[in-house]
Amino acid sequence: MSKHFTLENEDKGARAGVLELPHGKVHTPIFMPVGTQGTVKTMSPHELKDINAEIILGNTYHLYLRPGHKLIEKFGGLHKFASWDRPILTDSGGFQVFSHSGLNDITEDGVHFQSHIDGSKHFLTPELSIEIQNSLGADIIMAFDECTRYPAEKGYVLESLKRTARWEKRSKEAHRNFDKQLLFGIIQGGMYKDLREKSAEQIMDIGFPGYAIGGLSVGEPKDIMFEILSHTAKLLPKDKPRYLMGVGTPFDLINGVESGIDMFDCVMPTRNGRNGTVFTWNGRINIKNATYHDDSKPIDEKCDCYACRNFSRAYIRHLYKANEILALRLNTYHNLYFYLELMRKIRKSILNNEFEEFKKEFVENYDN
Amino acid sequence: MSKHFTLENEDKGARAGVLELPHGKVHTPIFMPVGTQGTVKTMSPHELKDINAEIILGNTYHLYLRPGHKLIEKFGGLHKFASWDRPILTDSGGFQVFSHSGLNDITEDGVHFQSHIDGSKHFLTPELSIEIQNSLGADIIMAFDECTRYPAEKGYVLESLKRTARWEKRSKEAHRNFDKQLLFGIIQGGMYKDLREKSAEQIMDIGFPGYAIGGLSVGEPKDIMFEILSHTAKLLPKDKPRYLMGVGTPFDLINGVESGIDMFDCVMPTRNGRNGTVFTWNGRINIKNATYHDDSKPIDEKCDCYACRNFSRAYIRHLYKANEILALRLNTYHNLYFYLELMRKIRKSILNNEFEEFKKEFVENYDN
Repeated sequence: MSKHFTLENEDKGARAGVLELPHGKVHTPIFMPVGTQGTVKTMSPHELKDINAEIILGNTYHLYLRPGHKLIEKFGGLHKFASWDRPILTDSGGFQVFSHSGLNDITEDGVHFQSHIDGSKHFLTPELSIEIQNSLGADIIMAFDECTRYPAEKGYVLESLKRTARWEKRSKEAHRNFDKQLLFGIIQGGMYKDLREKSAEQIMDIGFPGYAIGGLSVGEPKDIMFEILSHTAKLLPKDKPRYLMGVGTPFDLINGVESGIDMFDCVMPTRNGRNGTVFTWNGRINIKNATYHDDSKPIDEKCDCYACRNFSRAYIRHLYKANEILALRLNTYHNLYFYLELMRKIRKSILNNEFEEFKKEFVENYDN
Repeated sequence: MSKHFTLENEDKGARAGVLELPHGKVHTPIFMPVGTQGTVKTMSPHELKDINAEIILGNTYHLYLRPGHKLIEKFGGLHKFASWDRPILTDSGGFQVFSHSGLNDITEDGVHFQSHIDGSKHFLTPELSIEIQNSLGADIIMAFDECTRYPAEKGYVLESLKRTARWEKRSKEAHRNFDKQLLFGIIQGGMYKDLREKSAEQIMDIGFPGYAIGGLSVGEPKDIMFEILSHTAKLLPKDKPRYLMGVGTPFDLINGVESGIDMFDCVMPTRNGRNGTVFTWNGRINIKNATYHDDSKPIDEKCDCYACRNFSRAYIRHLYKANEILALRLNTYHNLYFYLELMRKIRKSILNNEFEEFKKEFVENYDN
């Protein structure tokens, strides 16, 4: 199955590659904008192509509850339903079941949970998660796992990762579209190196065409996160794509790449954008700040995106104060462009064996 | 001054023409999308060009209060501030002072009012309205008037229209950019034909390069509105553009054109779009309706807009239920496209002396 992924170059641990998926090629390292409910918030598919997003996420938990995977399947899958013809990755729903819903009661079979929309009761199992994801039809789907919280007792994490391995095995057995959808495994193990090793061993024993590292950026200090990340990434096979789930800041992405990660997703550029926080090559700013009241500069003078080519900080700030949707649109557009451009620059630097120089220059200019 | 407007054809009262403005040509009859706060809600300037909007509106009342006309002037005017290089029309602020704000106390000098944003007290006069509009720099600006309510006593309407004439005279005297901004006069007179005649006479005596009909669609029955409209339009000079303010439904536009109106504006396509109501060539539908749950058809099968070429009713309904901004965007985009396309078809039918046939066909298909 490794034919899907071609490693093009390695530069001191950082990797550049190409992932070939049913709906197109993905150039790694890649950032995947999050489209929770079948749309990347405030963006149109046309705009996502404008900024050259190569792959986006969909959330199984949300789409299962609304509008329902059976409806989406009837429309020919999520690609057709949402009018997006490039690759999609769906998560397993596990993370959202634990973080979004009321009552979550874990059994060997699966997880009982309540909908955050109407309080209705549901039971999510590895089999149901895969059934939903098969209906949605994303290019990459994820095995059903438990993302342990931080902090968590070692004994609990051990029990959890063993159950997660059993769930992932059942996920693989339930999968029906091996030729059209790659099923990735997920490594857990909390902040314990030996448990990360144990989880990696168990998940690799099951065997998947790609591996994700879950359970990071869940509240732990950054130094612990990066220590566990680099330790875990080293355990994974070189010829398979590696995906760090739900991370993170521009620094996190650069450090993740340095640890050998190929794929990232995070709500940060979209959520922050809607809250007025925009990323520039000199660091983050909040466009709502009074200091931008009469600022005629664009969000970032070094940026070539639609928002920066056409609008001033003062105008976008005005749109915010006036509760105009265009403010959310412009900030989201810019932030996603920034994240994708960052990854494209990282990729280029890896191909040129200049990743270290790129990182140094970025860190010097970027004031978080 | 009539050189700005060229009448191309008349077809049983309906008129097709071209209005040449500093920022470009406007082909009449025209619908002008409303950009109250310096943005047409949910739309980008790029999208407005996609649907070929030739002129948009800005609201003096809103822009005066936030972000302030002085700031916009500092940025080179509303065109540059909002990154819109085609024509703009601004209203006088009079209508909003009466409809949006608390406390409005009319004196001969002007109107005392309270901001709907922070309750601050302001005094809007003809001179200030024109000063603001000169700062904003729209291609067409409007004289300051009082829009009388419905119903209103004849005695009050008479006093009001006489004061409005004095205010409009002061507006003309205060105007500083005759070469760059056309100042239009406004006819009032409520639902009294003789008072409409009196107002038209007084306003035309002052003399403007274009005339608007105000004070219609303020709660009166439709038959009264159309009677007053056609009576008033007939009083206006043929060689000047005629603008019916704040109207209306697709039927209203067609009837307005039939009465000899050249320009229209209304929040209906944008506001309705945000509320889920979309216009089709067969009538209005509400996309939130459960009946569209699994409807794979576009909003309108006869429509070529971006929304209709790419998305199903079921998908847009899902976006609504999930509170996704893309729902508001797609509906607004479609509705404005529909309104502009309706006007383009009307214009073409007038140029071909087929307006009556067009109206007949539209009315037969359109079930309100």
